[in-house]
Amino acid sequence: MATTPTASLPLQDIARVGDRLEDIDTPALVLDLDAFEHNLRGMQSLAELHGVALRPHGKAHKCPEIALRQVALGAQGICCQKVTEAWPFLQAGITDILISNEVVGRQKLELLARMAAQARFTVCVDHPEALKALSAALDARQSFVDVLVEVDIGQKRCGVQSHDQAVALADQVARLPNVRFAGIQAYHGGIQHKRSFEQRQRAAEKGIKATAGYVDALRQAGFACEVVSGGGTGTAGFDAASGVFTEVQPGSYAFMDGDYGVMEWGEVMALRHALFLQGTVISTPTPERAVLDVGLKSTSAESGLPQVVGREGLRCTALNDEHCILIAEDPRRRPALGERLLLIPGHCDPTFNLHDKLVAVRHGVVEVVWPVAARGLSR
Amino acid sequence: MATTPTASLPLQDIARVGDRLEDIDTPALVLDLDAFEHNLRGMQSLAELHGVALRPHGKAHKCPEIALRQVALGAQGICCQKVTEAWPFLQAGITDILISNEVVGRQKLELLARMAAQARFTVCVDHPEALKALSAALDARQSFVDVLVEVDIGQKRCGVQSHDQAVALADQVARLPNVRFAGIQAYHGGIQHKRSFEQRQRAAEKGIKATAGYVDALRQAGFACEVVSGGGTGTAGFDAASGVFTEVQPGSYAFMDGDYGVMEWGEVMALRHALFLQGTVISTPTPERAVLDVGLKSTSAESGLPQVVGREGLRCTALNDEHCILIAEDPRRRPALGERLLLIPGHCDPTFNLHDKLVAVRHGVVEVVWPVAARGLSR
Repeated sequence: MATTPTASLPLQDIARVGDRLEDIDTPALVLDLDAFEHNLRGMQSLAELHGVALRPHGKAHKCPEIALRQVALGAQGICCQKVTEAWPFLQAGITDILISNEVVGRQKLELLARMAAQARFTVCVDHPEALKALSAALDARQSFVDVLVEVDIGQKRCGVQSHDQAVALADQVARLPNVRFAGIQAYHGGIQHKRSFEQRQRAAEKGIKATAGYVDALRQAGFACEVVSGGGTGTAGFDAASGVFTEVQPGSYAFMDGDYGVMEWGEVMALRHALFLQGTVISTPTPERAVLDVGLKSTSAESGLPQVVGREGLRCTALNDEHCILIAEDPRRRPALGERLLLIPGHCDPTFNLHDKLVAVRHGVVEVVWPVAARGLSR
Repeated sequence: MATTPTASLPLQDIARVGDRLEDIDTPALVLDLDAFEHNLRGMQSLAELHGVALRPHGKAHKCPEIALRQVALGAQGICCQKVTEAWPFLQAGITDILISNEVVGRQKLELLARMAAQARFTVCVDHPEALKALSAALDARQSFVDVLVEVDIGQKRCGVQSHDQAVALADQVARLPNVRFAGIQAYHGGIQHKRSFEQRQRAAEKGIKATAGYVDALRQAGFACEVVSGGGTGTAGFDAASGVFTEVQPGSYAFMDGDYGVMEWGEVMALRHALFLQGTVISTPTPERAVLDVGLKSTSAESGLPQVVGREGLRCTALNDEHCILIAEDPRRRPALGERLLLIPGHCDPTFNLHDKLVAVRHGVVEVVWPVAARGLSR
């Protein structure tokens, strides 16, 4: 009954330029270019208004085509969270990359040292042994990096815990070859997501104060912080206006997601939803229930279930590996078999990491399909 | 300061054959071949003991090399959850594939029709319109599939809701070209994960009874179910012994994960943990805290945080996109900077979907590196 596959049978692309939205195969990660460009301009203007550099985070989108557009609009460079993640951005011509994280391990240091011979790299350190290994790896390849001492301003993740530790590391940088002290990295991920404007402002001010304390302690010890980097989408407005940070590192601002979408933004920014997941209704087993071909393998749910766009009274009640269960309050509003629906992912960063392609549309027509080239590059 | 990248700078492979476990770059998805082979044999023996077919689920691992080993040990074929997911398995020579899901949409039907010309495909239906479109797409390509009517035995996801609906679909299959009625698909994902043996047994028996009801109703209407397919890792033992199911579809059994690992298994099976995530300690900012280079982009957490292997008093307290926070009860047990640790992922299926490579080791040495070829194929 079964035969051996003979001819090659290529998989079709998810979409082609000129396709209408409803012709895109699903699940598909879809970018609304008008909203996206609005968001890019908004954050760039905010940074320029306050005279700080914008260094958008590449971990949010993992897409070099997006980074090139961010830089073209005025961004100083980008951040990456992992060394391999930086690789496709470097290949695409991004020439100023901050690895906003600790780099530990032989293979990672070797790749960093080789990439640092080709562009400007900055890297975070929070441990004397890690710094020593970094310097040695760079020395072996005769390349150089700028170093930011990572300081913990409340995130309780990485980063030095005291002014003394920060000064000791800055001092060690000064005595090691192939590394140059450039300043500090001060990022608090948790406070980015506080929903109320006032709560977020208060939390940001606490972080800014802690950051300023580190800058002062380092200055008093003779180490001027040329770069004070931090701030995500949630606090970028406060950090940029602080007079303490010299650059901000937002990522999600370009896209928005379910988590950021429910936050109060005050007058600071008017970001728009630009990122969507398109799914198809594959089953309508009851009058209230519809099932989409979208699941945990195409959208992340750790920051909340996806939201259905433009369908009042229709909500996602569960997300399995490859199924999204939708329940309609009123059966007359249940979508029909084969219908395409747009969802807003709960969290954009891990959602991008599930897709190889980003389908960019304008006015409902596919304008371009971009590779998510750093997808899966977590080493 | 910055220069344009000149020479090509290839990314190194995550591991090479002969590497020791501690030489593998991280984060890495690691398979213990001894435990894996033990699990494969265990489930195959269970199926043979009860005279049912084993059709392991390819969605769990997305790795054709694994499917080939499952079939070589006696599996009837495999399941896939999506049409594109089946594609690399077909290319690798798997010749009997059940798409254990509804297939709706022009592109998906077109690909299925083309693949069905090369191997034996079976596909689920739960809606007359979907069945009509399936038959038409196959007719256009002059290919054929077997059809299982999906019945809802309590999952409340896809599947017909009544005996009458099942009979009506079977009848429609008989009157349409290029499709043949083969039986039913009866799967209840939720009950796979009940922790107590007795609770799971009771839930499985309820599902088996509902399944038997559908089989009887179809038989009375003149439709014999040659295939009654269902059963995941959690209920496979009960389903195989039921006399109702003719084949079982477990996936996780080959690997185990944190979720299945905490369950009571009784005498039915003795599965071993075979799948691990290896991480490196990149920061030790406090006496109690260590941070690994593992996160939501390398392991799924919707079924629980990863567990640390072989380190008493050390547990994961948070998982960010690229960081795993570990807290040691006793600071003397906190791992050191640069140490490699093994974790057990909370849920194996979405974790496989984050990795391009599976590093297979035996006695701590890399024996082979397998591509996770269906990673990301969710269309």
